[in-house]
Amino acid sequence: MSQLHLLSPRGFRAAGVHAGIKTSGAPDVGLLVCDVVASAAAAFTTNQVVAAPVKVGREIIAAGRLRGVVVNSGNANACTGRQGERDARRMCALAAEAVGAGAREFLPSSTGIIGHMLPMDRIERGIALAAQGLGDSSEHAAAFAGAIMTTDTRRKEAAVAFNLGKARVVLAGVCKGSGMIGPRMAVPHATMLAYLTTDARVEAAVLRKVLSQAVQCTFNAVTVDNHASTNDTVCVMASGLSGARIDSPRALRALASAMHEVCASLAYQIAADGEGATKVVVITVKGARSDADARLMARAIADSPLVKCAMHGNDPNWGRIVSAAGLTSARFDPDRAVLRLQGAKVFARGRPLPFDRRAVSAALAAREVSVELACGLGTGAATVWTCDLSKDYVTINAEYHT
Amino acid sequence: MSQLHLLSPRGFRAAGVHAGIKTSGAPDVGLLVCDVVASAAAAFTTNQVVAAPVKVGREIIAAGRLRGVVVNSGNANACTGRQGERDARRMCALAAEAVGAGAREFLPSSTGIIGHMLPMDRIERGIALAAQGLGDSSEHAAAFAGAIMTTDTRRKEAAVAFNLGKARVVLAGVCKGSGMIGPRMAVPHATMLAYLTTDARVEAAVLRKVLSQAVQCTFNAVTVDNHASTNDTVCVMASGLSGARIDSPRALRALASAMHEVCASLAYQIAADGEGATKVVVITVKGARSDADARLMARAIADSPLVKCAMHGNDPNWGRIVSAAGLTSARFDPDRAVLRLQGAKVFARGRPLPFDRRAVSAALAAREVSVELACGLGTGAATVWTCDLSKDYVTINAEYHT
Repeated sequence: MSQLHLLSPRGFRAAGVHAGIKTSGAPDVGLLVCDVVASAAAAFTTNQVVAAPVKVGREIIAAGRLRGVVVNSGNANACTGRQGERDARRMCALAAEAVGAGAREFLPSSTGIIGHMLPMDRIERGIALAAQGLGDSSEHAAAFAGAIMTTDTRRKEAAVAFNLGKARVVLAGVCKGSGMIGPRMAVPHATMLAYLTTDARVEAAVLRKVLSQAVQCTFNAVTVDNHASTNDTVCVMASGLSGARIDSPRALRALASAMHEVCASLAYQIAADGEGATKVVVITVKGARSDADARLMARAIADSPLVKCAMHGNDPNWGRIVSAAGLTSARFDPDRAVLRLQGAKVFARGRPLPFDRRAVSAALAAREVSVELACGLGTGAATVWTCDLSKDYVTINAEYHT
Repeated sequence: MSQLHLLSPRGFRAAGVHAGIKTSGAPDVGLLVCDVVASAAAAFTTNQVVAAPVKVGREIIAAGRLRGVVVNSGNANACTGRQGERDARRMCALAAEAVGAGAREFLPSSTGIIGHMLPMDRIERGIALAAQGLGDSSEHAAAFAGAIMTTDTRRKEAAVAFNLGKARVVLAGVCKGSGMIGPRMAVPHATMLAYLTTDARVEAAVLRKVLSQAVQCTFNAVTVDNHASTNDTVCVMASGLSGARIDSPRALRALASAMHEVCASLAYQIAADGEGATKVVVITVKGARSDADARLMARAIADSPLVKCAMHGNDPNWGRIVSAAGLTSARFDPDRAVLRLQGAKVFARGRPLPFDRRAVSAALAAREVSVELACGLGTGAATVWTCDLSKDYVTINAEYHT
């Protein structure tokens, strides 16, 4: 598994370069290209404020096919009016021209500061440079994954392989996301940038359905700061070059399972790399009246700054968790609830339980912390991944200047 | 105005003492007593997890009359089961006995850590001590205001006087609240402890209505961390001893206006003393489709950690504000919106405006900062008060140990 990467599926090449958009000198333009016309699907933010590349991307993806994606970091091209849309289209045209594709066969993405016009001269130079450097090695995959990062501290990559008949299929992905992470709507959408590749042969409509289902329980279940961005995009391209067709229920299940596995791994990596995070907090709510109710409560717990600070301080201050569960429109009755922190039962049926505070606090000092709330009201369940809230979050976001 | 205080309305006495509930030695038991049976009204949290004193208080206030309130800080008496309810009733009985009232004429409140049984021996000693020390001076008012504080750094007091016919009426109040502040429901409720006194002569039903209206645009418009507590209580008592009756539309308007003024002042003081706060952020949304829409957007802006961190860093990073407005179910169209920071127009109709970043950043360094979003969609308006998010918030809440 470890040797698989974004470019392991047959037919894909990528590059990541520094074009001078970021003053830091870090890579900021990425190209991901398919040698053939890939069937494709994407999900976008449901924020009413959408960035220019999302507006353009929604149009382009309607055809269900792509030759590639072109991405810049360091500038979100959001709240930039008509000029922003022209710039996003120009990014596509430049990328397409560089690799001999049609301008409407590229999906554009941008991430970074809102409200600044794209420096198109640098974008243009970056795309040309990236097109010259395309390749299919793991280094090329890493370079692309690096070029889409903003406040991320590490690259986020995942891949799985599975067999369909005699063919071996790979599904892989990269993503970025660290702050402004907080999907909240039930419809499929995402909260960061993620690009998936596969060499399965699959129709765009099927790809769209499989992606939607995977996004719901993975990218839509991550929150860092409950602030869905203007630019969120998940895009999957299928080259078909493995020869393996998704033409049976069994094949569809295999694809869906791989899609879920890759998306879940990427989403978890986003929580783990949340701005200022020192740990992942896995919040599971079960026994709710419905899955939707469970999601509402899990999100309320995950988005409470008081809970996140307690987790940062390794403090088994469970009153904050129980009271957060009571905040939403979902039915919650503390007299039927049981709460466990790292497996230790701390609250049951309306009353505190005696527990070893020192031991539970020590257990909360782990890299991954489990919060499990059983509601005793039904069979609804949901899991949400978040991170703790540290002083570094404040430093990063008070000093990420316009 | 400056000499008016909680005990200026005729008929009220108070005390605040240290009973040893807080290990810090700070005052932690307060008594507020009316010499006569006061008509009374209260509003409580709508969190489904309610503390024992709120359960008991809801029953007691139904009669519409009170002789006083008994409060402890340092322990919330929440998630404490049947024993917690017995303890809350016992607090009332002890207070009533000490001043010669009925046990069902006292409203109990508690604030502090969730999930610990009240130390009833200390509570009992504290109530006895407070009853011995009752008085009607400004020092007594200050002692009561101090005894209800938790992470508050300063007392919160407000009072106004107005004339009704020949009588002079005073309406005054104190409150506490610094963290776990975030009402989110449309029904009247509050997110902290607040106690109001007046010597107007007013029926409980009228008092309830006037209080509900005032709470909606004042206490319900404050958020520190969007986490409504289990213990939130606002209670008003009217002694009637001014002789001034609320028996005309004009008198009712005068009372409602005084109530709004006192509640607004107290609510603002909560935002200003939010945990770790260095400034108040006043968020006004206007031109929305409805007041409810405006409230949703103002709250989304106020509760975004990204916006709060930008405000802390004096950073005119307006993209975070506009994108937060787009997150809710309220209709928002960036192409019609205009955003002003401290009066400076920074975004209009989908596009960034040139502005002097250094000057706006300097203006954001004030103790009070104004964020004004005009939506261009209708006449709905709302104002929400919040504070910035600093490292001190994290310190306070990662180290406020169970």
